[in-house]
Formats: sequence, structure tokens, C-alpha cells
Amino acid sequence: MDMVVTADLLVEDIDFRLEWTTPEFLGHKALAVSLSDIAAMGATPRSALLSLGIPELLWKTNFLDRFYAGWHALAGAHCVELAGGDISRSSDKFFVDSVVLGDVPKGKGVFRSGAKPGDHIFVTGFLGGASAGLDLLSNGIRLDANLSTTCRHLLLRQLQPIPQVITGNLLQEYALPTAMLDISDGLSSDVAHLARASGVGVRLDAACLPVDPAIFDFPDLAANALQFALHGGEDFELLFTVRPDKSDIALDLGFHQIGEITDSSECDFLSDGKCTRLEPTGFRHF
Amino acid sequence: MDMVVTADLLVEDIDFRLEWTTPEFLGHKALAVSLSDIAAMGATPRSALLSLGIPELLWKTNFLDRFYAGWHALAGAHCVELAGGDISRSSDKFFVDSVVLGDVPKGKGVFRSGAKPGDHIFVTGFLGGASAGLDLLSNGIRLDANLSTTCRHLLLRQLQPIPQVITGNLLQEYALPTAMLDISDGLSSDVAHLARASGVGVRLDAACLPVDPAIFDFPDLAANALQFALHGGEDFELLFTVRPDKSDIALDLGFHQIGEITDSSECDFLSDGKCTRLEPTGFRHF
Repeated sequence: MDMVVTADLLVEDIDFRLEWTTPEFLGHKALAVSLSDIAAMGATPRSALLSLGIPELLWKTNFLDRFYAGWHALAGAHCVELAGGDISRSSDKFFVDSVVLGDVPKGKGVFRSGAKPGDHIFVTGFLGGASAGLDLLSNGIRLDANLSTTCRHLLLRQLQPIPQVITGNLLQEYALPTAMLDISDGLSSDVAHLARASGVGVRLDAACLPVDPAIFDFPDLAANALQFALHGGEDFELLFTVRPDKSDIALDLGFHQIGEITDSSECDFLSDGKCTRLEPTGFRHF
Repeated sequence: MDMVVTADLLVEDIDFRLEWTTPEFLGHKALAVSLSDIAAMGATPRSALLSLGIPELLWKTNFLDRFYAGWHALAGAHCVELAGGDISRSSDKFFVDSVVLGDVPKGKGVFRSGAKPGDHIFVTGFLGGASAGLDLLSNGIRLDANLSTTCRHLLLRQLQPIPQVITGNLLQEYALPTAMLDISDGLSSDVAHLARASGVGVRLDAACLPVDPAIFDFPDLAANALQFALHGGEDFELLFTVRPDKSDIALDLGFHQIGEITDSSECDFLSDGKCTRLEPTGFRHF
């Protein structure tokens, strides 16, 4: 087996707000973001390290017990073992470094760099829900028993993302993806990462984007639905490319084709019969 | 081979102060503390993940280049490869999570839990220098060209600790230690960790503690020399136990015997002919 390993930082007031979530969701999400990275290589997560910086005020509450409960619930579901980590006091903000180790059969790991001109571009699931949920949270909507189903769905897409571990494994078993990564920064940014790593261009088709249908239940959000799907981050779906002769298999499996790989070095975006340049305006790391 | 992995958090104003060190030393120390954990298992470090939380003010300086220069210098010396990590903005404090992966021949890793009554307790190197250096720093002494050799030595014990990787490997090759850990929290705390993990007691002999001789150059420090050696943390020397019939080998290799393992459940301390209880008063994790 080849070993794979990934690390993700989550910092209070940068990556999350304690008032908007619960300790359990935060524990879940801290693990989920790293499981998603492992999934994007087609690998199986095995063990994890969890390093926590904890301000004294939180230390004196049941915050940590609840955080661990959320973490362990997701870890248990994936048979991931907590192998270590560190705990330190922090001066005022809570932060987490989430490291996950996994393995994949020798030589079978999927990289970002394998896409070739002509390959078809696919995504798992629907896009934009997590950032639409973030929009609702920033407008004061909180999880409670009286929310509509679609409102709850959008908040949970943001607060409790489900990493596509099984799907990533299946795709790897089928040897279907030529390149893959997870959508964490946002489609426009992540497709640019894939294109740069593979030395290719991409062309996306607006009409084919699987926009999360729950967004259309909210008129304020519906007006920006395409923006959420294109630039909103944290959907933690998988973005992958497939050789054109294998494209039917991906379609039969229910994945959405959203465009194709080109031999240019640009990200082109087809919308209403016009082709524009797609600028990566998802989450920027500084 | 068995894989080993360790994580260490370093948080600004909890574990270090930016005014007391340089970015290069901080990069060095972030890696050194984790290499020391790997050394304490008798393992060989192979690769590392480095996660950094960086406040915006630092981002705009050359801090990060200098931090990486210090990190890579030590990594290069140990052929450790930077395999990944994460970078996030932090609101106001700099923090580091340092993860190191290593390996050790199958079944040959050294744990804290293997000490047996009658085993002799040894340390590598000298103790107390790092905390004496911290005392000098907190009294306003800074590294500059005009310092005496011993003053510089004590500051560097604190700012640029040298992990005992080669020594840890040698000890493991000789199959000499029955238990081992590194002295990071302080001898009194770390010997208690070893005793608890092994289900044994210890008896340390004050007259045998290898106090860092540089401490005696400073009258204010010399008065507390034994306290620095007993309770001062961050020396990053190795503490290990050896079967009595192999004790001569450890002595011949130049290690200091400081006591022995007992069948009590206490940490006894012999000093001036009297035996007292040794309370762990080194660094406490909360």
C-alpha cells in the first residue's frame, strides 16, 4: 500500500464562529475536511492526529467533551482510530489541526495532475449548498426545531459536511478518474488547481452545474445560485476527470458532467451561448 | 518497519515569545520538539507535516521565509522531507502544529512502559540548561555578539534545542533501553510519566544529576541549579532505563545514571542522606 497523509487547520473566527455552530458539529467538521482530502486521492482513512489549541474559558466548560463526541462519531463511522495529537493552551481563540493518515493500493492513488485534453469533468453531488448555508448563518438564521427542511439542509451542508470517502474509494476501484480533488475552496478555484497541476485548460458549462436545489427555496439566495455553485467553498464534493471513452460509466453512476479539459491554459465558462474567462474567486489562502 | 507519528503544538505567548527568539530558531525548535519524540522511541524520522496559523502582520514580513529556513536546515540535517501541512490566517497569535512521521524496525520501538524494578535510570547529556536559559531571557538577556560562551550556551539550549535522534537510534540498535522518553516537561514530571506508564516507582539521587555546568557561572542561577535540573523543561535529552546487567554498557557510552526503578509506586528523591517524595512540578498540560 502507499501511505497518504493530510493536514487541515481550522481557526476560530477565520474558519468558523463558535456562535454559529455546536461543539459536536465542529468536532465532526474538523475530521470531515481531512477525510475529504483522503477521499480525493481514492484512499482509505485509517488513523488521525488531533491537535487542539484551547483558550482557558472553553477549557472550563464541557466544550471539549462535546467536540470529541462529534469527532468520534464520524471517526467511528469510518473506522478511523485516534492515534495521537497534542493539546495546548491558546491565548484567546480555539484552533484545531486535523491530520489524517490513510492508504491506497500501491500506485493507485489519484492525483490532481493526471487530466488530459479531451477528458470530461465530473462532480459528485450538488454545489453551492454549503456557502448558501453560510449566507443564512451570517444573516442570523440558526439551527432550531422550527426550520424548514430545505433551510436545515443548507445549514447542515455548512456545519456538518459529509466527506465523500466511499465515493472516492469506488471511483479509485473503478480506476475511473484521471485526476481528482475535493471542492473545498470553491469550484472556480479548485478547477483552476486541477488545471494548473495537470498543465491543461478547462471549459465549464453553466447549464450543466448541479446547483443545490434547496437554494431556490430562498428568493434572496436564488438570485445568486450560480455564484454559490461556482465560487462557494466547503461543499466537500469530489471534482474529477474521466477519459471520454469512460464517460458513460460516470454518467451511469449518476455523476454530473460539468465540462471538459482543453489544451489551452485558460478556464473558460460557457453561459447563455457566450464564453467568458472564469476567474477563481473562491476562498483564497491569503 | 513499524510507523511512528507524533504531533506537537507551539503557541505564541504560551510556548514561546517572538521578542525572545528569531524566526529561524522558532522554525528549528518547531521541528526539534517532534524529532525528539521520534528519537525517544528509537525511531528514525522520515517526513513531516507543518501547519501554521499566521497573523496578518507577520504575513507581510519575511518572518515565514526565515522560519522555513530554520525548519529546513534541521530537516535537511536529518534527511526529513516536508510532506505537507496547512497554512491558515490566525487572528493575532502565531502557532505551529509540527507532525513528524518515522519508522523503526518491526517490534523494536521503545515505549515508556517497559521499565522493571531494579532497572537503572539514565539520562543523555546535561539537565537544566534550557530552563536556566529561559530564566535569562525572562530577565532581559538576549542573544548578541558580546555574550560570554556559557551565557550563549544556556540561551541556545532554550532557543535551539538539539534533538537526540542519533543517540536514540544507537540506544535502540543496542537494544539497551527497557523504557525511554524525552525530557520535555522536566525531569520530575517525565520520570513520573515513565513510572506511571510502567507501573513502577523510581528513586533518584540528587548527587548523580548531571546539572548543566554552565549554570554555575551565574550566581543567581547557581542557587537554583538543582531546581532547574529537576523541574526545568525543554532540555530534550533522553531519559531511559536499562537492565542492571547491561548498566555497564550505558556507563561506558558516557550516559549518566541518576537512579533506579523500584517496586513502590512513588518517586523518591535522595538528597543529603535524606529521602523525600519527588513531586512532579515541571510543565503541566493544563
